[in-house]
Amino acid sequence: MDASARLEQDLEAAVSRSAGGDCPPRLAEAIRYAVFPGGARVRPRLCLAVAKACDDTNPAASVAAATAIELLHCASLVHDDLPCFDGADIRRGKPSVHKAFGEPLALLTGDALIVAAFEHLALRLAVIPDRLAALTRIVAGSVGGPSGIVAGQAWECEPAMDMIQYQRAKTGALFAGCTMAGAAASSFEPTAWQPLGLAIGEAFQVADDIRDVAGDMAVIGKPTGQDAAHDRPNAVDLLGFDGAMIRFEGLIATAVSLIPDCPGADSLAVQIVAVSRGLVSGLGARQAA
Amino acid sequence: MDASARLEQDLEAAVSRSAGGDCPPRLAEAIRYAVFPGGARVRPRLCLAVAKACDDTNPAASVAAATAIELLHCASLVHDDLPCFDGADIRRGKPSVHKAFGEPLALLTGDALIVAAFEHLALRLAVIPDRLAALTRIVAGSVGGPSGIVAGQAWECEPAMDMIQYQRAKTGALFAGCTMAGAAASSFEPTAWQPLGLAIGEAFQVADDIRDVAGDMAVIGKPTGQDAAHDRPNAVDLLGFDGAMIRFEGLIATAVSLIPDCPGADSLAVQIVAVSRGLVSGLGARQAA
Repeated sequence: MDASARLEQDLEAAVSRSAGGDCPPRLAEAIRYAVFPGGARVRPRLCLAVAKACDDTNPAASVAAATAIELLHCASLVHDDLPCFDGADIRRGKPSVHKAFGEPLALLTGDALIVAAFEHLALRLAVIPDRLAALTRIVAGSVGGPSGIVAGQAWECEPAMDMIQYQRAKTGALFAGCTMAGAAASSFEPTAWQPLGLAIGEAFQVADDIRDVAGDMAVIGKPTGQDAAHDRPNAVDLLGFDGAMIRFEGLIATAVSLIPDCPGADSLAVQIVAVSRGLVSGLGARQAA
Repeated sequence: MDASARLEQDLEAAVSRSAGGDCPPRLAEAIRYAVFPGGARVRPRLCLAVAKACDDTNPAASVAAATAIELLHCASLVHDDLPCFDGADIRRGKPSVHKAFGEPLALLTGDALIVAAFEHLALRLAVIPDRLAALTRIVAGSVGGPSGIVAGQAWECEPAMDMIQYQRAKTGALFAGCTMAGAAASSFEPTAWQPLGLAIGEAFQVADDIRDVAGDMAVIGKPTGQDAAHDRPNAVDLLGFDGAMIRFEGLIATAVSLIPDCPGADSLAVQIVAVSRGLVSGLGARQAA
């Protein structure tokens, strides 16, 4: 089974448990709706790619970590889309969770997905408990306080923010969680893998900016022009379209140079370049047209 | 150090980590505000009392579980108080988190506290990893889907609900988490401790109903009359004040009868009765006056 199929199967198991049994039917429906069908699954795929590059000695651990990361990413999307933040009506090409199920269930769906992520790690890693502590700490650090996704979102509520700190927490932290968890799942020392994740996260942020300006809603599955609408900084505004693309390519090159020594470093580099370029493919041509 | 002081110290450590370092200042303030000063800390005290009755062979595990449970309880209060649910302005005698910090930060504070709970377990139990898996599963099961607190709250969004299932999920599940986690921390088989927790949770729900009708906001720290305002069922409406008190006493007696065999069963029984009666002490006198 390829990595993508393993991931979907593991996500299905986690969702079936959280939304199964006596779960209130509409909550169950909303939990499933928030996770399936997925987006590009960029983060869990990165986690699995790093694990593979580290020989993936504990495949149950790497896929559980990838699943937990994707559940937490889905939770962050559901909560970020709420009216008190972005007020986004469309996500992954369909109504966002609060548009489809109402605000109360959207709030609870996000909460349930956060809990499900940690529960899934504990269930899957009960047989390799030393990996459980390490992976839970990595995953929690990438989403909670003081410098995970939640902190990134909270910087938007501060009277002043440091842009680098903000983007590192809002986007970089979870990408760093992906690379660190992929390495830790295979018992590699995770800290060495943090800079790679942060660089990929920065590249992804620039790609997201480019897609927000030059993308097509039907392709990216969410409304474009959101940075301008919410008065948020955007790399295309700062650097122009070509400048943003050059910055993006530079960040990918930096990321590749930061891959730590591991058995599968070369193929990991190829995969990172391919997945990253896929995020902005076709956008240059549209812009030039 | 007594159990209460150990708990507050462990909560302080968890909050300091989640709200420390690079945490956005207002998020850090809101996280601390949501946890300190605490309410009666009924749930974590129950967890520690059960652990003690089971000889508390892993005090680091029992206090970490108690802390995680209290963080999750605080998270649920912050999210439940939001306008899309109860819209409660006062909690623990002061403005609720969204009144003090705004809705976006209240949402993020709840999220951060959920993550902090599981991170705390992983940090504290890294040295006894087999307890980590067991305790994470118990704690997650008591708050997430399909039948933890989140599910309890979600029943309020369904067109129809089973009242027993609703109250068991909304209140009973976390009390059962307390008794099961206290037992599991000391390597007792946790399942045997679930009925005790559910019975205490049911008693607590009746006590909460009595306090909502006959309590004083200055004493209980939150507005009274909320069940009537939100058209929720209340035991005093159903049974009258005296009937509700009799039901409450009956549930406490049932709970005591359900204490599993353990070294400290007798003193645990005394403590459960004392803490429970404390919840409604004085209310009969006020009512009769």
